[in-house]
Formats: sequence, C-alpha cells, structure tokens
Amino acid sequence: MSIAVMMEHMGKEAKDAARKLRKCQRTQKDAALDLMASKLLERRRRIIEENARDLSEARKAGLSSAMIDRLTLDESVIEGMVEGLKEVAALPDPAGTVTGMWKRPNGLRVGRIRIPLGVIGFIYESRPNVTVDAASLCLKSGNAVILKGGSEALHSNLALAELLGEALRDAGLPEKAIQVVPTTDREAVNALLGLEDHVDIIIPRGGEGLIRFVTRHSRIPVLKHYKGVCHVYVDKFADWDMAEAICFNAKVQRPGVCNAMETLLVHEDIAGEFLPPMIGRFQEASVEIRGCPVTLQLVPGIRPAVDADWAEEFLDLILAVKVVSGMDEALDHIDRYGSNHTESIVTNDYENAQRFLEEVDSSAVLVNASTRFNDGNQLGLGAEIGINTSKLHAFGPMGLEELTTTKFIVYGQGQIRN
Amino acid sequence: MSIAVMMEHMGKEAKDAARKLRKCQRTQKDAALDLMASKLLERRRRIIEENARDLSEARKAGLSSAMIDRLTLDESVIEGMVEGLKEVAALPDPAGTVTGMWKRPNGLRVGRIRIPLGVIGFIYESRPNVTVDAASLCLKSGNAVILKGGSEALHSNLALAELLGEALRDAGLPEKAIQVVPTTDREAVNALLGLEDHVDIIIPRGGEGLIRFVTRHSRIPVLKHYKGVCHVYVDKFADWDMAEAICFNAKVQRPGVCNAMETLLVHEDIAGEFLPPMIGRFQEASVEIRGCPVTLQLVPGIRPAVDADWAEEFLDLILAVKVVSGMDEALDHIDRYGSNHTESIVTNDYENAQRFLEEVDSSAVLVNASTRFNDGNQLGLGAEIGINTSKLHAFGPMGLEELTTTKFIVYGQGQIRN
Repeated sequence: MSIAVMMEHMGKEAKDAARKLRKCQRTQKDAALDLMASKLLERRRRIIEENARDLSEARKAGLSSAMIDRLTLDESVIEGMVEGLKEVAALPDPAGTVTGMWKRPNGLRVGRIRIPLGVIGFIYESRPNVTVDAASLCLKSGNAVILKGGSEALHSNLALAELLGEALRDAGLPEKAIQVVPTTDREAVNALLGLEDHVDIIIPRGGEGLIRFVTRHSRIPVLKHYKGVCHVYVDKFADWDMAEAICFNAKVQRPGVCNAMETLLVHEDIAGEFLPPMIGRFQEASVEIRGCPVTLQLVPGIRPAVDADWAEEFLDLILAVKVVSGMDEALDHIDRYGSNHTESIVTNDYENAQRFLEEVDSSAVLVNASTRFNDGNQLGLGAEIGINTSKLHAFGPMGLEELTTTKFIVYGQGQIRN
Repeated sequence: MSIAVMMEHMGKEAKDAARKLRKCQRTQKDAALDLMASKLLERRRRIIEENARDLSEARKAGLSSAMIDRLTLDESVIEGMVEGLKEVAALPDPAGTVTGMWKRPNGLRVGRIRIPLGVIGFIYESRPNVTVDAASLCLKSGNAVILKGGSEALHSNLALAELLGEALRDAGLPEKAIQVVPTTDREAVNALLGLEDHVDIIIPRGGEGLIRFVTRHSRIPVLKHYKGVCHVYVDKFADWDMAEAICFNAKVQRPGVCNAMETLLVHEDIAGEFLPPMIGRFQEASVEIRGCPVTLQLVPGIRPAVDADWAEEFLDLILAVKVVSGMDEALDHIDRYGSNHTESIVTNDYENAQRFLEEVDSSAVLVNASTRFNDGNQLGLGAEIGINTSKLHAFGPMGLEELTTTKFIVYGQGQIRN
C-alpha cells in the first residue's frame, strides 16, 4: 500500500471515529483517559524497552545529547504522563455547552452550542510524551486525532498508540479516534497535509523549519506559531526591584521556551541607574547581552546588537537590550520586530499600563508580570495543546475549549421566510 | 510598478492602517459610516455613470443577462447600500469587549478582550454593492480591508473606493483602511494570497471555482464555504401542513442561494401520502424533481436521480427527493452527501428533534423551520460578511463579532514563575 493510500485510509477512519465520538458522553471519555493512565503504569516496562530501541538508534545516528534527553522515556517521565492524563480527565468537557441562546422577533429560538472540531492532524518532533498529552486533549474535547511524531521516536510512539487504542476499545469508544502514523517516511506528512476532505485542522509543534514547511504545504487550516520574540518594557515609572525580578525570571527561569524574554526595552530616563546592575545580574547568570549603542555606553564591554538580533528568537541565555525614549518608541519597536506572542510592561503609571494593554497586538499582553505566564496552564485554561500566533480561531494558548467550535441550533414552530 | 510590488505596497499600507484603526473609537467609525452614506446619496449620479461604463463593456463582452443584472447599480440598489451603511453604524462595536476575566491563585487577573483580526483580504465576483457592504463590516469591526472585486465591476468599484476613502479621511480615520485593487489583472489575486506578512485572513465570496482556486493558492488562512447542499428531513412524526410549508419555502422562495434546500428526505411511513401532493405543488411552481426509486413509484413520470444529484448544489428550481427508512438513514445520507451548511428536520417527536440537533454536523441545524434562516441577519448577528463551513474560527454566518478575535490581558503585581 502506498503512503498516500495509507494516509487517505487513516483519514477516512479518523473521520468515521469523529462522527461516533460526537455522540459519546463525558463519562466514557473520562473512563478511557483513566484506563490509559492505568495501562501506562502497568506496561511502563514495555514502553521503556521500546523507547530504548529508539534511543539506541538515535545514539548510532549521532543525535545531540539534548535531543537524546528529549527522546528519553524513564519512570519519571511516564509518571508525568500519567498525572497529565488524570488532570485532563478532571477538566470540564467543553463540548455540549450552549454559549448563548436568544429569541428572534419571529419566535425562533437561536442558540450556539460547542462541538468538537472533528479530526485534528498533529505533527510534532521528538518528545514521545507529547503523543499522550496531545491524544488526551483531543479525545477529551471530542476530536479524533492523527499523530505524526518525529521519526526518531517511532517505536516509542507505536507502543504508546497500541495502549491508547486498547483503552479506547475497553471504554467502548472508537479505536481509530487516536491513530499514530506508522512510518518514518516524510511523504506521510505531505499526504496528511492534503487530506482536506477528512482532516479539519493541522497543529504543528516544533522548530520554525517544520512549521514553515507545514504552513506552506497544507491545504488544511493550520494553527501555529513560528516563534516567540517576547519583550519586556521597563517604563520610567517602574518599581525597580519588581522590574529586575520580572526581567530576570522572564529571561533565565527557562530560556529555551517560546514565552521567554528575548529583548529588554528600557526607558532612557532610568537606563543609567537600572541597566548596569540588571545587566550585572544577567552576566552572573551567564546571559550574553547584545546591546544598543546607549547600552554599550552604560555598560562597557558588551557585544553590539546587529539589526537581526532584534528579530531573533534566541531560545538561549542571550538577551538583546535597547534603551528607548518612551512608550512610542517601545510600541514601535515591538510592532516592527515582535512576533505577536507575549509582551510585558513594568510600570506603576496607570495611563501607560492601559495604553500598552490596548495597543500591543500580541496574544498575551501583561502588566507587572513575567512573560513566562503566557501558557494555558498558567492562564487558567487547564492544559494547552499549543500557542497560536495567527489571529484566526484562537489567538494565544489553546486549551480544550479552543479545540472546539460552535454550531447554530434553531428551535422553530413552523417558521418560513418572507 | 509590477503587480506584485503594488500588492506588497497595498498590504503594507493596510497593515499600517490596521494599527491606527485599533486605537480608534466607535464614534469615529460610525461617523465615517454616516459620511459614506451621505456621500453615496450625493454622488449617486456619478456612481451610476461609472457603472454604465462597466455595463457597456459587459454587454460588448456578451455577459449573460443574469450577470448584467447583478452588475447593475441603479437608484434602488444605491438606496439599499445607504440603508446597509446606516444599519452597520447602528450595530454595537464588538472590539474592546472583555469576554471574561478571572483571578488566578497567584493573584494574576487574566482576561480576554475582543480585538480586530487586523487586515482582511476580500475577494468577490460581480455585485459592486458588496464592495460597500464588506468595507462597512470590516471598518466597524476595526479591520483594514483590501477588496478585490470582479474585473467586470472595476469602474464601479473604483468610483465607490474614492468615496469611501474620502469619508475615512473626513472622519479622521486612516484612508488606507479600505483599498480597492485597481486592476483587472488576475495576477493581483495570486499576489494578494501570498501577502502572509501583511494580511491576516482571506474571505472569498463567489462560485465554487473561485473559492477552490483561492483555497489552493493562499498562504493566508481562508474562511469560506464551497457549497450549500442543504437538506430537509420530514420525519414520520411531522405536522404535514408545516412540513409542506417549510419544504416549499426552503426550495422556492429564493432557489439561487446557498441556504436553499437541495435534497428532500422523507420517512417511508408517510411518503405515500405526503409526497404526491408535495411534489405536485413543487411541479406547479416549475420545480424539476429528481427522485429515488421509491419516489418514482409514488409519483410517475419523474426523472430518476443519479448518484451525483445527491451531492449537487443546484442553485435552481431543481430538487432531489429521497425516501428513507428513518432517522439513521437520514443522518447517514446527510453525513455522506451534505456540505456541513444547513439542515432542518420537521417533526413533533422530542427524541428525534434532539437527536437531529446533536448529530448533524452542520453550521446551522434547525427543527421545524426553513433552511433559509441560516443567515447572519435572520439569526440575529446583525449583518453577515459570509458563511463559513470550515470548522475553524467561526462555523456558519460571520457577523461583526466573527471578524474579531480575542487576546489575553493580564494585570499583575510583580508575579514571576517558579
């Protein structure tokens, strides 16, 4: 069977499963999630064995130690997956909620009700635990999912898929609601992106290269973010201790993630006193600073920032620093170089706080808080499948509710149109 | 200047205008809409003259009388545009509404606020009055728009654009918030579909060919529907008079639109008595019937339906009729041949009504009402820019609210992540 035929077949089975899932109750979905958790614990030895095959091939192929690290499933990672399943089971089911209902002048009762999107194509790299995370969120929101993980994790993913399918069957749910693409052939991704009659939405998670590839080749709508070039603007009216704590947290607490700060903007009136100790603290934490000309004057010996640095997502202990003349320049800079992801202002000035919240066109805009809070869990969505920086459908972190849409339901008494 | 360079330039100007629009108040937007209405009335003679140029070229090119009809701007069409502008001005402004706000355990106040999508690319055929309708909805919701109308309407559209731009300027709004592509070159559409850095969303409105072309070539998310193959299912427990009125209205009241009925499904237990008079009434109204074998037995002399008829959007006085064994077969038929657009059941049975509402996967599902009600105005959205049958963003009619998205706003007091 060719890859294209196989993917077409998977798409049809997913669509069929999605239709059955629409009718399932929350209790069944939660039962399946609980079964997944218990089966995962019971069979952790076999999962770890299959993962060892992936690890051994990855070592032979010379993958970096960071990659090997992300690929590894040990007892503690599996425990994390089990916890995740239990958390998702405990979350409310978004499907079936009537988000509004009203009566029209002609007596029609019109409402909007949440329904699953249908079939989700999820394309990701490395970490096999994402297989279970994504599958559980899709199932809970009533969606069927086709999972295309990284080639290097194939044995791990297939072992997980077997177990997930079993749990679905045992809970009386359609087994094909969760499918893992059983090949490392790159052609499978292309085929998946062309299944517009079966798949409703594509969510890619991984590096910018993967995401650009998916966006360019997909005939199906894609929810994604390319990168997070996040800014903190320390205003003239900031509390300096608070500003220092927020900036340090935003850059250093976990530099490799999309909501970490990449550029620090500081008001010129306070830069002379604020920046030298701030930069000193960064340097103690091994953060490399790339500064604008004014920053270089204030703190000698710093590497000058080039234009490309302002648009760069370093994902590392590197920080671009720029001194600005005030709100206008800060907003212009963010508008020009930002990625519509996450921006924060530190200020005690009411007007500046309100203006920043209104004018910054990012999925999350914060006042006096670390950029690291732009995350589904942290914002209170319960869990997230990813962050979307396109404006469509759901701007920002996507939780269970964002994996649904609404349809109109209309209760009539024989109304016709004039 | 090449078409590509021109479109890139229009995209940049639109993005710049969108940034300014974000800061504008409702009063300014409404003032611009009122100015558009009064200028349209004042200058209707010039608009009609420019339209006459289009009409004369269209006649020379041998366009059908239906096309000529849709292209024509006379006093009454212009009055309709003026009314439309006033109605949009009177609608509430969706931007700025906080759709929810909550407090996290760490004290962060997290909210979601409605914001415009940004820049909309609107691609449409023929009717020049759509230029004003679409522009007004985009402006009211705070979006900049690039309008690419049909080649045959270019003079009309440019005359309208001039007037719209003037109204924007007079109201102190960015003139480039509404731009009409000033060329009939097809290359302009391709260039527009590639402006992923400037345009947030593409909305095509027209025939299935145009929409498939746009979907296939766009790098920007597209909200669209290909076709409306809408069903009415007359259940065993229907009120026959009500069923006849609804079916007749759904097919005949305006057969050329996407929410008209294309296939009638009838329960076998009532088909023998219900169908002959129903079909008789359709035939009196010149509706051509294409029937399943049972229908042919019940009403002799009818054309047999072929498989392709069940998936066809006739947009004409043609109706496919099928007798089904009950709910299961009706739901299977809709699932297989439907277009996720609009379906209605006529029944007095509580269980069947509820089951139909739950299981039919269409943007609007109705009980005891004509399919013709799936329309933004009729459902209470105020006005619509189109109907979306993809699940993403907004499933069904899109009004002002559906031309916005939400961003997260976070009020902190110095919170950092652990």
